Amino acid sequence: MTAVANIQEVAYELAAQFEQTAVQRDKTGGNAKYERDLIRESGLLKLLIPSEYGGLGGNWRDVFEVVRIFARVDSSLAHVFGYHFVNLATPHLCGSESQKEYFYRETAAHNLFWGNAFNPVDIKLVATKTAKGYVLNGVKTFCSGSVDSDVLLVSAQEEGREEPLLVVIPSNRIGIDMKGDWDNMGQRQTDSGTIIFNQVEVSADEVLERGFNASEFSKLRLNIATFTLNHLYLGIAEGALQSALSYTKQHTRPRSIAQTSAIEDPIIQHHYGQFYVQIEAANLVVHKADTLLQKLWDNPNNITPEKRFVLEMALQTAKVFTTTVGLDITSRIFEVMGSRSTSNQFGFDRFWRNIRTMTLHVPVDTTIQNLGYQFLTKG
Amino acid sequence: MTAVANIQEVAYELAAQFEQTAVQRDKTGGNAKYERDLIRESGLLKLLIPSEYGGLGGNWRDVFEVVRIFARVDSSLAHVFGYHFVNLATPHLCGSESQKEYFYRETAAHNLFWGNAFNPVDIKLVATKTAKGYVLNGVKTFCSGSVDSDVLLVSAQEEGREEPLLVVIPSNRIGIDMKGDWDNMGQRQTDSGTIIFNQVEVSADEVLERGFNASEFSKLRLNIATFTLNHLYLGIAEGALQSALSYTKQHTRPRSIAQTSAIEDPIIQHHYGQFYVQIEAANLVVHKADTLLQKLWDNPNNITPEKRFVLEMALQTAKVFTTTVGLDITSRIFEVMGSRSTSNQFGFDRFWRNIRTMTLHVPVDTTIQNLGYQFLTKG
Amino acid sequence: MTAVANIQEVAYELAAQFEQTAVQRDKTGGNAKYERDLIRESGLLKLLIPSEYGGLGGNWRDVFEVVRIFARVDSSLAHVFGYHFVNLATPHLCGSESQKEYFYRETAAHNLFWGNAFNPVDIKLVATKTAKGYVLNGVKTFCSGSVDSDVLLVSAQEEGREEPLLVVIPSNRIGIDMKGDWDNMGQRQTDSGTIIFNQVEVSADEVLERGFNASEFSKLRLNIATFTLNHLYLGIAEGALQSALSYTKQHTRPRSIAQTSAIEDPIIQHHYGQFYVQIEAANLVVHKADTLLQKLWDNPNNITPEKRFVLEMALQTAKVFTTTVGLDITSRIFEVMGSRSTSNQFGFDRFWRNIRTMTLHVPVDTTIQNLGYQFLTKG
Amino acid sequence: MTAVANIQEVAYELAAQFEQTAVQRDKTGGNAKYERDLIRESGLLKLLIPSEYGGLGGNWRDVFEVVRIFARVDSSLAHVFGYHFVNLATPHLCGSESQKEYFYRETAAHNLFWGNAFNPVDIKLVATKTAKGYVLNGVKTFCSGSVDSDVLLVSAQEEGREEPLLVVIPSNRIGIDMKGDWDNMGQRQTDSGTIIFNQVEVSADEVLERGFNASEFSKLRLNIATFTLNHLYLGIAEGALQSALSYTKQHTRPRSIAQTSAIEDPIIQHHYGQFYVQIEAANLVVHKADTLLQKLWDNPNNITPEKRFVLEMALQTAKVFTTTVGLDITSRIFEVMGSRSTSNQFGFDRFWRNIRTMTLHVPVDTTIQNLGYQFLTKG
Repeated sequence: MTAVANIQEVAYELAAQFEQTAVQRDKTGGNAKYERDLIRESGLLKLLIPSEYGGLGGNWRDVFEVVRIFARVDSSLAHVFGYHFVNLATPHLCGSESQKEYFYRETAAHNLFWGNAFNPVDIKLVATKTAKGYVLNGVKTFCSGSVDSDVLLVSAQEEGREEPLLVVIPSNRIGIDMKGDWDNMGQRQTDSGTIIFNQVEVSADEVLERGFNASEFSKLRLNIATFTLNHLYLGIAEGALQSALSYTKQHTRPRSIAQTSAIEDPIIQHHYGQFYVQIEAANLVVHKADTLLQKLWDNPNNITPEKRFVLEMALQTAKVFTTTVGLDITSRIFEVMGSRSTSNQFGFDRFWRNIRTMTLHVPVDTTIQNLGYQFLTKG
Repeated sequence: MTAVANIQEVAYELAAQFEQTAVQRDKTGGNAKYERDLIRESGLLKLLIPSEYGGLGGNWRDVFEVVRIFARVDSSLAHVFGYHFVNLATPHLCGSESQKEYFYRETAAHNLFWGNAFNPVDIKLVATKTAKGYVLNGVKTFCSGSVDSDVLLVSAQEEGREEPLLVVIPSNRIGIDMKGDWDNMGQRQTDSGTIIFNQVEVSADEVLERGFNASEFSKLRLNIATFTLNHLYLGIAEGALQSALSYTKQHTRPRSIAQTSAIEDPIIQHHYGQFYVQIEAANLVVHKADTLLQKLWDNPNNITPEKRFVLEMALQTAKVFTTTVGLDITSRIFEVMGSRSTSNQFGFDRFWRNIRTMTLHVPVDTTIQNLGYQFLTKG
Repeated sequence: MTAVANIQEVAYELAAQFEQTAVQRDKTGGNAKYERDLIRESGLLKLLIPSEYGGLGGNWRDVFEVVRIFARVDSSLAHVFGYHFVNLATPHLCGSESQKEYFYRETAAHNLFWGNAFNPVDIKLVATKTAKGYVLNGVKTFCSGSVDSDVLLVSAQEEGREEPLLVVIPSNRIGIDMKGDWDNMGQRQTDSGTIIFNQVEVSADEVLERGFNASEFSKLRLNIATFTLNHLYLGIAEGALQSALSYTKQHTRPRSIAQTSAIEDPIIQHHYGQFYVQIEAANLVVHKADTLLQKLWDNPNNITPEKRFVLEMALQTAKVFTTTVGLDITSRIFEVMGSRSTSNQFGFDRFWRNIRTMTLHVPVDTTIQNLGYQFLTKG
Repeated sequence: MTAVANIQEVAYELAAQFEQTAVQRDKTGGNAKYERDLIRESGLLKLLIPSEYGGLGGNWRDVFEVVRIFARVDSSLAHVFGYHFVNLATPHLCGSESQKEYFYRETAAHNLFWGNAFNPVDIKLVATKTAKGYVLNGVKTFCSGSVDSDVLLVSAQEEGREEPLLVVIPSNRIGIDMKGDWDNMGQRQTDSGTIIFNQVEVSADEVLERGFNASEFSKLRLNIATFTLNHLYLGIAEGALQSALSYTKQHTRPRSIAQTSAIEDPIIQHHYGQFYVQIEAANLVVHKADTLLQKLWDNPNNITPEKRFVLEMALQTAKVFTTTVGLDITSRIFEVMGSRSTSNQFGFDRFWRNIRTMTLHVPVDTTIQNLGYQFLTKG
C-alpha cells in the first residue's frame, strides 16, 4: 500500500493546480473536464477501493482528507470527488457481495468516475419492470457530478414499492439525456443539473439487490452523505479563512496612523480570534463524527441502531456547526480584508456563494430541530 | 411644482423596467447606458434642483425615496443616482453662491448626470497651479458613476495645502482616461473604476471656492454621503426581504406533511418575524437621521457643531444598523426559500454581494468604535 | 394643569430616592411600603386622570415617561406604577361611562393605588352569580401590585361565558387572602404573588359592564399592557447602560499599559458603540408605538381593526426589540466593567434578573413567530 | 489503587448532597463549612497526590471529572475543590523536589484543604527579607477558598525582584486576618474575599524555591488555572442545560392547543438543538486541551515552548468557547422553561450569576484578541 503514503502530496499538487484557475472557472461554470481528467490521472479515484480489488486501500479518513484539501480552493471539485466515493460505496452498502466486488473491480480497472441521479426527494423518475430488468422514464434534478461521469448511481420509484430502486448504469446508456443546465450561484462546477431518462433500459444485475434498509450497515449510506457535506463545509470555511489571512497580511491597510500594519488592529485581531476558535471547534466536531463512522464501517456486522443513532447525532451536530461557522466566516472575512478585496480578480465571494448554496439541501433548521427533539426525548 | 407630485410614480415605473434586466446586467457588469438614459429621460436628475434654477424643487427626502425604490431592485443604479445628487450638491455646499447657481442651472438646462473621482483616502491625484488654474496628474480609484457621466466632481491634492482641492469639470475634458475597469463582486454597474488624469487642465472657476470646511453647512458634504449609503443599504435589505417573501409564498416547499404551504412552518415564520423587526427598526433609525439632515439643509445658517454632532451620531447609528441588518437578511433569506432559490435565474445572491461590497468603504467596526468613544466621553 | 408641568422633576426626585435603597430592597424583596407611599404622596397616581375628574390630565406619554425614569433604577416600582394605570384605565376601556367616571373620581379623591389579580391565562378563579352580583372563589397568581393596594382589578371565569368577567373591588374586601408569596429571581418588589379568594362578594356595579371586546377601544386594554412592558424593558436596558457607563469611567482598569483609562480600550469602545446603536433603535421602535397608541386613545370612536392591527404590529415589534436588546445589554455590561463590578454592593445583576423575569410572560418566540405569520400573510 | 476506582461514585454522592442545599446556600453565601467537611471526609482532597506519598494517585482528568460533577450543581464548591489542586500542585511545579514531596505528604497525612491569596494582578502584598525568611505585610483580594482552609498559597512582591515570591503557609499563621467579605453576585461560597497580612512571618523553607518560570514545567502553573476554569464554565453550562431539560419536561406548559407537551413545540426543540450542539462542541474543545495538558504533565522533562504554545492555544480556545456558550445557555434556558421557572425555589438564575461572575477575571475579549494575534502572526 505504498500508494496511500503519498496521497496527501498528490492531493496538494492537484489543489495547487485547481487554485490557479478556480476563480475563472467559478465565473464560467459548466463542466471542469480538464480538472476532472487530472483527478482521473492522479489515481485518486481508487482511493477507497480495497487493495484486493485493485484499489489504493484507503479508508474514509483518507478520502476526506483529500476532500478537505480540494474544498479549501475549489469546493466544486471537492464535491464531485467526495460524492464519487459516496456513490461508489453504495453497491458495497446496498448491493450484494458480488455487486460490491464487481463495481470496485470495474472502477479500479477502468478508472471510472461516478456521478449520480439520486436526489431522494425528487420522485419524478419511474422504474417499470421488464423481462430483463427495468426501464426508466422521467426526470431527475440536482444530479451532481453527472456530466463527464463514467457511471451513474440512480434512484427511481417503482410502483407498489416504498423504497426507491437503486441502480448503477453507465452514464452513456441510451436514453440518458443530461441537460448540463446547472447554473446556480454556487458550487458552479458540480454539474448538478437535470437528467431526462427516456426509455433507459436497466438489466437485473444493475439493480442493487439489498437496498437502503437491508441492514444497519446499508443505512450508513445516508450518514456517509452527511459526512461528506461536513467536510465540504469545513473545507470551504478553512479556505476562506486562509485566503483572508494571506490578504490581510499582504494588502489590508492599517486603520490608524499608530499602526504599521492591519494585523496590529485590535478589532481585526478580535475577528481573527473568533474565527480561530470557530474553526478549531468545527474541526473537533467533524473529527468526532469521522472516528465514529470509520469504526462502524470497519465493523459492518457489529452496527446496532444505538451505534448508528450516536453516529447520526454526531454527524448532525457537525453539520449544524460547520454550516453556522461557514456562513459566518465566509461573509465576515471581508470585514478584516477591506474594500479592495471585493475585486473579482480574487473571487473571495465564491466561498460564501458555495457554502450558501450547499447548505440548503436539508434546511439546517430542520436538523437543529431534530437534534433538539432527540435531546428532549432521550437526553 | 406639479412635477414633484408624481415623482414616486415615475420612480416605480423606472424600477419596474430596471428589474426586468437587473439579474442579467448584474452578470455582465459594465456601464448601464440604456438605464442611465432612461433616468436622464425621466427628468429625475433635476429632482433636488430648486425650481428657481429650473429644477423640480424636491428635497433630500424626495431624492432618497427614489434611491430606495431603485435600490430594492437594482442597487447599482440607485448608487449612481444617489451619488449624482451628492456630487451635484457639492458646489452648493463647498462652492461660492455663483458656483452653486451656475452648476444647478447648467445641470437643469442640459440634464447633466454627475459622476465623481473623489474618494478622499485616495491621494495619488495631484493638482499643480498654473496661470489659468490647475493641471491634474495622477490616478483616482473607486470613481463611481464616472463612465457615461457628463460632469465629474474631482478631489485632488495640492502641495502645501492640507485640504483637498474640489474641482468640477466636464467628463470629456482632454486628458481624462476612464479605464472602465470596475469588475467587483457587487455593485457591478456603478462604474466605480479607475481614472487616469494626464495633464488635465482646470480653470480657476471650476475650483470650488470654499471647500469642505468653510462652514458647518459645507461640512454636511460628508454627512450627505453617509446618508445616501444608509438608504442604499436599507433599500437592498428591503429588496432582499420582498424577493424572499414572494419566493417563499410561491415556491418554497412545505417542510412537513402536516403543512400545506411553507408559510405555515413555525421556524420559517420565526425567521420572517425577526426580519420584520429588523427592517422596521432600520427604517426608524434611518428616518431619524433623514429628518435631522433635512432640517439642517433647510437652515444652512443655523447649523452649529452641536447640531452636526447630533446628526453625525444619528447617521452613524443608522449606518451601523443598516449594515448589520442588511448583511444578516441578505444571507439568511436563503434559509426561508430553500435549495432551488440558488438558481441564477433569480440572482438572489446579488443582494448579499451588493451590500457586502458597499459596506466596506469605511469599516463598520471603525464606526461602531467611534460611536462608543463618543458615548463614553460625552454620554 | 400646572401640575403636569413638573411631572418629570417629581419623577426624577422620586427615582433618586428609590435608587439609594434599590440594591438593598432587591435583596430583601417583599413589599416596598415606604416607596409606595412616596409615590402616593407625590400625586403621580392621578397622572392619567382627566382634570375634570380631579386628576392631573396627563396622557400616556406622560405616564410612560415616569415609568422609564423609575425603571432605570428600580423596575419593580416602575412596574407597579405603570400597571396602576393599566388597571385604572380598565373601567374607562371596558366599563360603562358612569363606571369610568366613578373610578377616575374615586381614585383622584382618595389617591387610590391599583393592583390586580388579572393574569388571563390563570383560569382558576370562578365567579358565581348571586342575587346581588357575584361571589368569587379560587386562586389567582402573578397578582402584581396587589399587596398594599387600595383597589384590585380582578378577572374571573363565569360558567357558560367565554370572556372573563372583569371586576373592580377594594383590596380589603372580606375573603381576599393575599399570600405575599412572590419570591422570584427578579422584579422582586412587584408583589406578584398569589391571592386566594374565599367567598368574595362582588356587587353588580363592581362588574365592568362592557368587557374586553365591547369595541375596538376596549380591545386597547391588551395593547396598553404590552405598551407598558416595552417601557419597562427599555428602562431597564437604559438603566443598565447608564450604570455601566459610570462604572467604566470611574472604576474599570485599563487593559494595557498603553492606556491611561479603560475608556481608551478599542474593544470596550466597540461594545459601547453596539450598546448605543441598540438603545437608539430601541427608543425609536418604542416611540413609534407610543405615538400610534396615543392617537387611538385620543380618538376612541375612530379606532378600526386596521388601525389596531397597525398598533399591534408596532407594539409587538417594540416588545421583541426591547427584549432582545435588554437581555443582551444587561448581560454584556459586565464585559466592559470587569471582575469587581460583580460585588453585591453594586447590585448590577438585578438588571438582568429583572428583565429576564419580566420578558417571559408571553414567550418572545411566540411574538416573533406571530409577527412573521402576519408578515407572510399580509406583507 | 482501588481508591481511584470509585472516585466518580463518591463524587456523584457528594454532588447529590450539595444539590439539596445549593439554592439555599447560594442565597446565604458565606463559608460552606459543612460541605467542605464532607469533601474532606470523602478523601477526595488526596485525589491527585501520587500513591507513593499517600495519595490516591489520580491524574488531572480524574480531578476535573469531579470538578465537572460538582460544578453542574454547585460551582462554588467545584471552584474551591478544583483550585485546591491548582494550589497543591504549585510546590510540585514551582518548588524543589523536597518541597513537592513534603507538601504532598503533609496534605495526604493531614487531609489538608488548600486555599490561596494569590491573584497575580493584585500587587499590594509585600514580602520583606528577614533573618529567618520573610515577613509579609499588605492586602490580597480574590482569595478563593481561603476561609476554612488549612494551607494558603500566597504570592507577594519583593522589592527588586520581578517575579512574585511564592509562599506556602498554614492558614492560621499569626497575622493573617481573613475578612470573610466575599459578597458578590455569583460563586457565592468560594470565600473569595480579602486577607490582610500583618507582620506574617514566613520561614525560608516555606518559600517555593524555583518559582513560576524555572522551567517549561513550572510555567504550566498558569495553564492549569485556565484548565480548571474551563471545566467550571462547562460544568455550569451542563448543569443549566440539565436543569432546563428536567423543568421543560415536567413543568413547561404547551404553547398551543395542538400540543400535549411543551417538548412538541418546534421553537423549543430548535433552542434545545442549538444548546445540544453548543455543549457537544464545548466538550470537545475542553477535552482536546485536557489531553494536551495531561501529556505534558506526564512528561515534565520533555516540555518545549512549542508544546506549551500549542497547549496554551487549546486552553484559550476552550476558555473562549465555554465562556460564550455558558453565558448564552444560562440566560437562554428561561425561554424554554417559561415564567414560573423564575421562582426562587429553583434558583435557576444562579447558573448565569455564577458564570457571569467567574468569566471576568481575564476579560474574554483579551483572550480572543490574543488568539487572533497569534493566528495572524503564526497562522
